[in-house]
Amino acid sequence: MVGEIVVLRYGHRIVRDYRVTSHCCLVARAFGASKIIIHGERDESIEKSILGVVKNWGGSFKVEFAESWKKVMEEHRRKGFKSVHLTMYGLPLQKEIKKLRKPKKVLLVIGSQKVEREVYERADYNIAITLQPHSEIAALAVALDWLFRGKEMGKKFAGAGIRIVPQARGKKVLK
Amino acid sequence: MVGEIVVLRYGHRIVRDYRVTSHCCLVARAFGASKIIIHGERDESIEKSILGVVKNWGGSFKVEFAESWKKVMEEHRRKGFKSVHLTMYGLPLQKEIKKLRKPKKVLLVIGSQKVEREVYERADYNIAITLQPHSEIAALAVALDWLFRGKEMGKKFAGAGIRIVPQARGKKVLK
Repeated sequence: MVGEIVVLRYGHRIVRDYRVTSHCCLVARAFGASKIIIHGERDESIEKSILGVVKNWGGSFKVEFAESWKKVMEEHRRKGFKSVHLTMYGLPLQKEIKKLRKPKKVLLVIGSQKVEREVYERADYNIAITLQPHSEIAALAVALDWLFRGKEMGKKFAGAGIRIVPQARGKKVLK
Repeated sequence: MVGEIVVLRYGHRIVRDYRVTSHCCLVARAFGASKIIIHGERDESIEKSILGVVKNWGGSFKVEFAESWKKVMEEHRRKGFKSVHLTMYGLPLQKEIKKLRKPKKVLLVIGSQKVEREVYERADYNIAITLQPHSEIAALAVALDWLFRGKEMGKKFAGAGIRIVPQARGKKVLK
């Protein structure tokens, strides 16, 4: 059963990708991943903004940077992670899901526009969330939701300074 | 059982929201919605880009614009749609899902940063996908996936000029 999931965001570009990578970080955290490693251009504004969210909303989600995606994949392999690269060219999630839920530790790799061929070759699994063009943010959320079987939805975040009390209408927030 | 889903994207801003709204459109299409209605600033560059995707990848997904979100909600109510506003302040998806799968037609409302209070009041349901801050793109994808029970993943798009043949490694595309 999957316990720990780390996300590797491939090929981040400063300014251009700021919002999309920020969404990837927030989704990774909200849907139960423990860490995101951002490969590409080192963008400390994202780290700062996400750590602000962690401070207010709790939990121990981490943001790291890496210059070499190969090293990240290699290190995680040595630590017992299986790598799952999300790509619309891969095998359908709904057919592969049982296999993907077996490893205890998963490195989820999400790309931006163009991912090197070698990522496909080095990944343990190349998995498609629909065979259509859409969004790495959506692919990440749905993959985490399937891997954790929807149980991440009720996740509690320790040490939260802000907590939402669900409402049928309007907003209720405890601080 | 949910048959038709239309997405209402609230409060689009030209340039600033271009990529995020584009991702919302692509996700709506890939995960089985029939149409997206973009409220806010009229952005024909998005329509053009999404219609290009529809032309290549098939199906009959539509992009429309609306100046008044109230009119869109009212018109859809008259046509028998139930409206579901996705917001982290709402009731948890995993607790409400049975109820949400009952109507035949659903209008899914997704906001940007700040949504007027009246949207919460007029929506039939305010639903949270996790109680954490993340991404309307992720919320949309997960909501569609739950509403369609994952069956949207195998959706075929009629008239596609490009089709992916799933591969364990690498890319195979039929044109």
